[in-house]
Amino acid sequence: MERISRSRMQEMDAADPLAFTRDRFAFPGGVIYLDGNSLGAMPRVAAARVATTVGEEWANGLIRSWNSADWIDLPRTVGEKIGKLIGAAPGTVVAADSTSVNLFKLLSVALSLRPDRRVILTEEGNFPTDLYMASGLADLLGKGHEVRIVPPEEIVRAMTPDTAVVMLTEVNYRTGFKRDMAGLTRAAHAAGALSLWDLAHSAGAFPVDLTAADADFAVGCGYKYLNGGPGAPAFAYVAPRFLEGLRQPLTGWLGHARPFAFAPAYEPARGIDALRVGTPSVIGMSALDAALDAFDGVSLLDLRRKADRLWDILVSQVDGYAPELQPITPSDPALRGTQASFRHPEAYAIMQALIARGVIGDFREPDIMRFGITPLYLRHIDVWKAARAIGKVMTLREWDKPEFRQKAKVV
Amino acid sequence: MERISRSRMQEMDAADPLAFTRDRFAFPGGVIYLDGNSLGAMPRVAAARVATTVGEEWANGLIRSWNSADWIDLPRTVGEKIGKLIGAAPGTVVAADSTSVNLFKLLSVALSLRPDRRVILTEEGNFPTDLYMASGLADLLGKGHEVRIVPPEEIVRAMTPDTAVVMLTEVNYRTGFKRDMAGLTRAAHAAGALSLWDLAHSAGAFPVDLTAADADFAVGCGYKYLNGGPGAPAFAYVAPRFLEGLRQPLTGWLGHARPFAFAPAYEPARGIDALRVGTPSVIGMSALDAALDAFDGVSLLDLRRKADRLWDILVSQVDGYAPELQPITPSDPALRGTQASFRHPEAYAIMQALIARGVIGDFREPDIMRFGITPLYLRHIDVWKAARAIGKVMTLREWDKPEFRQKAKVV
Repeated sequence: MERISRSRMQEMDAADPLAFTRDRFAFPGGVIYLDGNSLGAMPRVAAARVATTVGEEWANGLIRSWNSADWIDLPRTVGEKIGKLIGAAPGTVVAADSTSVNLFKLLSVALSLRPDRRVILTEEGNFPTDLYMASGLADLLGKGHEVRIVPPEEIVRAMTPDTAVVMLTEVNYRTGFKRDMAGLTRAAHAAGALSLWDLAHSAGAFPVDLTAADADFAVGCGYKYLNGGPGAPAFAYVAPRFLEGLRQPLTGWLGHARPFAFAPAYEPARGIDALRVGTPSVIGMSALDAALDAFDGVSLLDLRRKADRLWDILVSQVDGYAPELQPITPSDPALRGTQASFRHPEAYAIMQALIARGVIGDFREPDIMRFGITPLYLRHIDVWKAARAIGKVMTLREWDKPEFRQKAKVV
Repeated sequence: MERISRSRMQEMDAADPLAFTRDRFAFPGGVIYLDGNSLGAMPRVAAARVATTVGEEWANGLIRSWNSADWIDLPRTVGEKIGKLIGAAPGTVVAADSTSVNLFKLLSVALSLRPDRRVILTEEGNFPTDLYMASGLADLLGKGHEVRIVPPEEIVRAMTPDTAVVMLTEVNYRTGFKRDMAGLTRAAHAAGALSLWDLAHSAGAFPVDLTAADADFAVGCGYKYLNGGPGAPAFAYVAPRFLEGLRQPLTGWLGHARPFAFAPAYEPARGIDALRVGTPSVIGMSALDAALDAFDGVSLLDLRRKADRLWDILVSQVDGYAPELQPITPSDPALRGTQASFRHPEAYAIMQALIARGVIGDFREPDIMRFGITPLYLRHIDVWKAARAIGKVMTLREWDKPEFRQKAKVV
C-alpha cells in the first residue's frame, strides 16, 4: 500500500467543502466515531430543540402546543425534509412509528394492489426485521402469501408472474453492497410487480432519487444517517400514483380524514397522511426535525464524494496495516453505500479492542466489523487515525484478551 | 349550592397528604391545568432525564449507551413501573409503540385464541381509534370478522357465542363514565370470550387491578395520567396465562428471541417481549421512565380520594355559579374516572374563553367540556379558582366573541 501522510490529511481537511458541518455535531473527547450507520452522532441543534420541546412547549405550553408549536404537523414537516434527501415529491413522505411498522403498512398496501399475486420477493441477507415483518403479515393474512427469499444474484430471475412486491434494502447492512434501485424497480415493473425499498442505510448517506428510480414504496430509519437520535421515528414514502385512495390496515385516529371529529367510522385521510396511526412521538420527532437541519447547505453529491475519499483512505490504510482483515464492501463506489466492512474470525474481539482505543465501529454476526463513513462529522484525519488504531490493535494483538470476547447484550 | 370558602380550601391543602407531589411538576405562571387527561403536566425529573439522555447518553455515550445506559431494557423497565400502577404481575407489561398499534397486536392475539369466533364486541362511544384499529384488523383478515358496536347498556347481552373478544375502554373519554372491569370481564369469560381493556383514562388516575379483574389484555397511554410527555410510548399488558407461546403479527426484530443473532427466521421472544417490534423511541421512553417516578411514595388510594374531593369541589361550585352547564359525569365515584365533563351548546367557545383566563381544560365534539382532575399536581384551591373562573365566563358571557368560535386544528 501507499502510506498516506498525516500532513496530506490535514491538507485535505483544509480543502474540504464540507468541513463546515462538523461543528454542528457534539462529540466526546478521545473518540473517533465510525458507527453513524447504526446511531448518528448528535447535532447540537437537536439537543437545543429537545430542551425547548420539553422545557417550554411541554412544560409551559402544555396541551396548547399541539396547535401553537405545530406538534400535530410534525409528521409532515419532518417527512418533507426527509423527502428532499431522497428525491421524493412534496406530500409523499411522512415520519411515523418505526421502520418495521411502516414496512408492515406499505407491504399491506402493495399486496392489496396486486390481489392476484401471492409472493413477497426478497433476498438472502436482507435486514432480518424486514423478513420477519413480511412473514408476520403473510401469516396474518392466511391466504397463502409467501415470503420468497432468494440469493441476491437470482433476484431478477425470481421476479415471476406470482410476485406481488419486490422488497429490498438498497444498501446491505452487513456488506455495504448497494443495489441498483432503478434497474431492479424496472425489472419488477416489467414482471408486473411493485417495488418496496428500505433506505435505512441510504437516506442521508448519499443522493437517493426515488422519483427517478420510479420506486413504488420506501421506508427508512431516522436514527442512522439522518442523526435523529436513538429510536427516532422512521419514515414512509408512497409514489404519487398511489396516493389517491391510499389505505393501509393500521387505521389509527391520526390517519383519519378528520381526527378531531371523533367519528365512529374510519375514513382515511387523503394522501400520505393515511399512513399515520397513533399520536406521534413529539419529543423524538422534534429531535429528528431539528437534526435534519444539519443537512442545510449540504450538497448530497459533495457528501458522497467526501464519503468516497474517506472510504478510500480507510480501506487502503487498513490494507497496509492489517491485510488479514478482509474487506467485503465493493471497492466500486457505484456498488456500495458508504460503510466499509471487514471480515475476520475474531471480529467481535477486535472491535471491542478498537472501542477501548476510542475508535467506535460495530460488529455483526458472525464475523463482520462495520465502519460507517459519515462525512457530515468525520474528517480525513479521523479515518486516517482510525486506520492506524486498527493497525495497532492487529499488530499488537490487543484484541486477544478474555474481556474483549464477552459479548454485550446489544452488539 | 353551598359556597365553599377560600380559607377552607387552604385548610384542605394544608392537610393534604399528597401535597408533597406538586413540586415534582413544572408549571407556567397564571395557569390552572385541568387537561392532564389529555397531556399530563411535566415532571421536573422528566426534563432532567431527557437532558441526560440526549446530552450525555446520546452525545457522549453514542452507540455504547444501548448497553451502558440500558436503553435496550427501557421497554421492560418502564413496563414494570407501569405494571405496579395497574395491578399487573411482573413481566406482563411492556412499553412500546402507540396505544393504537398495541391494540392491533393484542386484538390479533385475542382473535388467534378464539379462532372459531368472528366478533370483536365493543360499545358506542368507545374511543374512535379503538374502533378504527379493530375495523382495520377485521378488514385485513378478510375472514368475515366483524366489529360489533352496541349501545353501552346492551354490552352484556351482546356477549354471544360468536364473540371472540370484548374490547372496552374502562373510562369513557367524553363522559368519564367508568366501566366495571371485573364484572364485564367475568361476563365475557362466561360467554367464552376474552377481554381487552383500554386504560387510557385509568392508568395513573386511580387504582387499577388487572389481576383481580382477571383481565386478559390491556393497553394504555403514556402521556395522559402517566405524564410521560407528548406522544409518549404506550403500554401493553398480557395476562400471565397467555405469555407462554405469545405471538403477535408485528414481528419486528426486537420481539425476536435473539435480536442480535440476526437470524433469517423469526422466533418470538419468550413472554411479554414478544410484543416488541422495532427500535424503541429511547428519548420519549426515557422521559416516561423518569416521569413515572413522580408516583414514588404515592398511594393510589390516596390519589383517588383526593381526586374525588377535588371533583366534588369543582362540580358543586360550578353548579352554583353556572347551573346551565350540565354535568354528564356520574356523581357516584364508583361509576366514574377522575374527569368532570359538562355539556353546553357553546362548549367550544366557553372553553376558549376559559383558556384565555388561564384555566385549561378541553373540548370534545359535539358539545362537551372536559376537566381532568390530576391530584399529583392540583390543589384544592386550584379547582376552587377554576370553578370561579367558569362562573365568571358564564355570568359575563365572556365566551360570546367570534374569536372563541374559531376552531383550532387540534381541539
